[in-house]
Amino acid sequence: MPEQILDDISHRRYNPLRGTWLLVSPHRTKRPWQGQQESASKITLPDYDPACYLCPGNKRAQGDTNPKYTNTFVFVNDYSAVKEDQAEYKPEENTKDLSSLLLRAESVTGKCYVLTFAPNHNLTLADLSPKEILPVVQAWTEIYKAHLSPDSPLAKVSLPTKLEPIGLSLAAPNAQYRWMQIFENKGAAMGCSNPHPHGQVWTSTGLPDEAAQELVQQKKYRHEHGGCSLLGDYAKLEMEKEERIVFQNATFLVVCPWWATWPFEVMIISKQHKRALVDFDDEEKQDFAEAIAEVTRRYDNLFETSFPYSSGIHQAPLEGTDEEIEASHFHMHFYPPLLRSATVRKFLVGYELMAEPQRDITPEQAAARLRDCGGTLYRKLLQ
Amino acid sequence: MPEQILDDISHRRYNPLRGTWLLVSPHRTKRPWQGQQESASKITLPDYDPACYLCPGNKRAQGDTNPKYTNTFVFVNDYSAVKEDQAEYKPEENTKDLSSLLLRAESVTGKCYVLTFAPNHNLTLADLSPKEILPVVQAWTEIYKAHLSPDSPLAKVSLPTKLEPIGLSLAAPNAQYRWMQIFENKGAAMGCSNPHPHGQVWTSTGLPDEAAQELVQQKKYRHEHGGCSLLGDYAKLEMEKEERIVFQNATFLVVCPWWATWPFEVMIISKQHKRALVDFDDEEKQDFAEAIAEVTRRYDNLFETSFPYSSGIHQAPLEGTDEEIEASHFHMHFYPPLLRSATVRKFLVGYELMAEPQRDITPEQAAARLRDCGGTLYRKLLQ
Ligand SMILES: O=P(O)(O)O[C@H]1O[C@H](CO)[C@@H](O)[C@H](O)[C@H]1O
Ligand SMILES: O=P(O)(O)O[C@H]1O[C@H](CO)[C@@H](O)[C@H](O)[C@H]1O
Repeated sequence: MPEQILDDISHRRYNPLRGTWLLVSPHRTKRPWQGQQESASKITLPDYDPACYLCPGNKRAQGDTNPKYTNTFVFVNDYSAVKEDQAEYKPEENTKDLSSLLLRAESVTGKCYVLTFAPNHNLTLADLSPKEILPVVQAWTEIYKAHLSPDSPLAKVSLPTKLEPIGLSLAAPNAQYRWMQIFENKGAAMGCSNPHPHGQVWTSTGLPDEAAQELVQQKKYRHEHGGCSLLGDYAKLEMEKEERIVFQNATFLVVCPWWATWPFEVMIISKQHKRALVDFDDEEKQDFAEAIAEVTRRYDNLFETSFPYSSGIHQAPLEGTDEEIEASHFHMHFYPPLLRSATVRKFLVGYELMAEPQRDITPEQAAARLRDCGGTLYRKLLQ
Repeated sequence: MPEQILDDISHRRYNPLRGTWLLVSPHRTKRPWQGQQESASKITLPDYDPACYLCPGNKRAQGDTNPKYTNTFVFVNDYSAVKEDQAEYKPEENTKDLSSLLLRAESVTGKCYVLTFAPNHNLTLADLSPKEILPVVQAWTEIYKAHLSPDSPLAKVSLPTKLEPIGLSLAAPNAQYRWMQIFENKGAAMGCSNPHPHGQVWTSTGLPDEAAQELVQQKKYRHEHGGCSLLGDYAKLEMEKEERIVFQNATFLVVCPWWATWPFEVMIISKQHKRALVDFDDEEKQDFAEAIAEVTRRYDNLFETSFPYSSGIHQAPLEGTDEEIEASHFHMHFYPPLLRSATVRKFLVGYELMAEPQRDITPEQAAARLRDCGGTLYRKLLQ
C-alpha cells in the first residue's frame, strides 16, 4: 500500500464531508508535555444528588419539578440559547451601504431541550447497555419527528416502531424550524457543567454553518456521482479497506475517519442510505444504541477514565428541499480531546485556529487502539 | 439605531472575512456555572528557570545550547510539525477510483520556528512596553522577508527600516513555501506547555484552510467593490460607528469584530491597506508594537489575571498570485477563552462543533469592557 508511508511523513488529508483539509504530523507525539493536566474525572458520585437539577423529583432553576422518571426525561432548557418568542430584527437591505455588507445580522428563533439519559446521577452512556440506551434513541426520534415540516417526505414515513412517551407534551412549535442539532457535551473538559448523564437538542430557524457545509458537499457528491451518497460510498470503501474500522454491526459502521481531527475522533455511519432517525426500524435503532454503547465503552477503557467528548447527530434538515433531504446520510460524530492519557489532551489552538487543524497520531493508529479495547467496562472489572 | 435590539434577542451575525455565521445569545450569561474552573495562572515564576528550554544559556531537547540573548531569540522547533526533508507521497490520481476521491492526501513540507519574546522567564507581552515588543515585530518581519518568494512583489519592497539580527542564520529553505503562520499560544488553557514568553512561526508548502478561506473572501470583495480591501472598508466603518473600538493609534485600529466568536476576541487591523509586515516602516512597526501592548495589558487587567489566548497574524502569502497578494489586508487575531472571570471560560464544544459557534455576550459589550480597562498593568499597582 502506498499509504503506509503516511505513518511517517507530514501530510494533509482532505475531508470531503466538509470540503476542508487538516495537517497530520505523525512524529509529533514524541515531544514532551509540560503543559496543562486535566483532572481525571471522579467516578465516586452518588446515585442521587439532591442539588442536581436533572435528578428525578428535584426542583429546577425556574421552579419546575422533575417527575420521578425511570429512563429518559425531556424538558425545555431553562437557559435556552434560542427562544420561541422575541422581537423581530429586520434591517433594511441596501447593497450601497457598507453596514448592510459588513455588519450583517438576522434574528433567529428556536427551541432548546435538555434530555437526560438515565435517572441515576452517577451513570454515563458507557455504563448503560444497548437496551438501556434504546429509550434515548427513541426520545431523539420522537423529538425529531415532532418538529419535522409537514411538507417533508420524512413526515410521511411510518415505520413499525413503537415510540415510548418521553414525558414532554411536545407543543406545536411557533414556527417551522429548519435544523435540529442533537448533541452531548460529556465531561468538564468539554464544558459540561453537570455530570448527570444528559444531552441537548437545539432547533433553529437558521441552517447552522456546519450543517450547511456538509449539505453542500453531500449534494455535490450525489449530483456528480449519479445519485449515491457520499457517506454510503465512504462506508463501503472503509469496509473493503479494513484499516480504520473500530466496530460494526448489521446496520452501522464505526470508523476513525480518514480525515479525523480530534485524536480519537470516530463517526458512526449508517451502512445503508438512511436520511434521518425516522428511517430506522426498531431493530436498527437497537443497533444504533449498540454502536453508541461500543464507542463510549471503548473510550472509557482506552485510558481507564470517564472519557470526555462532544458528540452530535447529523441527519436531514427539519425543513429542506427534496434534494437536501435525499443527499443527507445519517451519521453521528464523536470529538474527544484526550491524546496521551486520562490527563493529557490535544489542544486545537494557535495554528489550528489561525491556519488549519493539526493532529499528532494517525487515524489508523487511533482506530487500532480503539479496536483493541472493547469488552467489559474497566470500572466493572475493578469492582 | 435599529441595532440596539441585538442586545436582547438571539441572532446570527455574518463574518465576511470567513464567509461564515455565528449565533449570538446575549441573555445566556445569566445561567449559573457549575462546570470546570481554570486554575488562575501563577505569577510567581522565577526570572530564570534552569529547567526551561527557552531561557538564555540553557540546553535544549536535541542538545543545542541557547545563546545569552537579550531580547528575542529564534530557533528551529525541536519537535516541528512539518519538516524540510521527508519522503514523497504521490498517489496516482484516478477519478474512477473511490479511494482517489474519498481518501485524499498530499505530502507537505515546511519549517517551524520558535521565537522568544524576552529573556526573562516570568514576563509576558503584557509586561513589556511597546519599545520592548518592537524587536519581536522586527524578528517576525525578518523571518517573513527571508521566506518570501523572489517573484513576489513584496520581495522588492525596501522600506527605510533597520532590521536587527535575530540570532538565526536563516538558511535558504529547501523549497518555496506558500504560507507563513505566525502565532502565539499563551497560557495553559490554550495548550501552552511553557510559560516562558514565546510564539511560533510555521511555514508550509500548502495553503492552510483558514488562510485560504480569508483569501477567497478578500479577493471576492476586492473584485466586487472596485479594488478596495474588505478590512480597509471595515476599519473605516468601525471608526465611524465607534461601537466596537477598543483602542487606536495612527496606524492601527483594535476592535472586537462584529462577528467575534470568542468572548473577548479582538482584531488589530491596519488602517491603511498594507499587505504584509514588510509594508510597514519603523514608526508603523512601533505602532503595531503599541497595539499589541494595549491588547495584552487590557486582557490582563480585565479579570486581573495572566489572560490566556491564541493570537495569529494574517498577511499576504509567501508565494501567490498578484491578486492574492493585493487582496490581503494585514491583521492580527486574538482568540481568548475567558468569559466571566479568571477561572470561568467559554467552551466552544457540542453545538459549536456540530452546528455553529455560539457566544453569550455581545461584541459591543466586550468592547466597552476592554475600552475601560486600559492604564497601568494591575500587577504593577499591586507591587
Ligand atoms: O507546539 P506546542 O506549543 O508544543 O503545542 C501547542 O501548539 C500547537 C500549535 O497550535 C498545537 O498543535 C498543540 O496542540 C498545542 O499544545
Ligand atoms: O448548555 P451548557 O451545557 O450549559 O453549556 C455548554 O454547551 C453549550 C453548547 O455546546 C456551550 O455553548 C457552552 O459553552 C458549554 O459550556
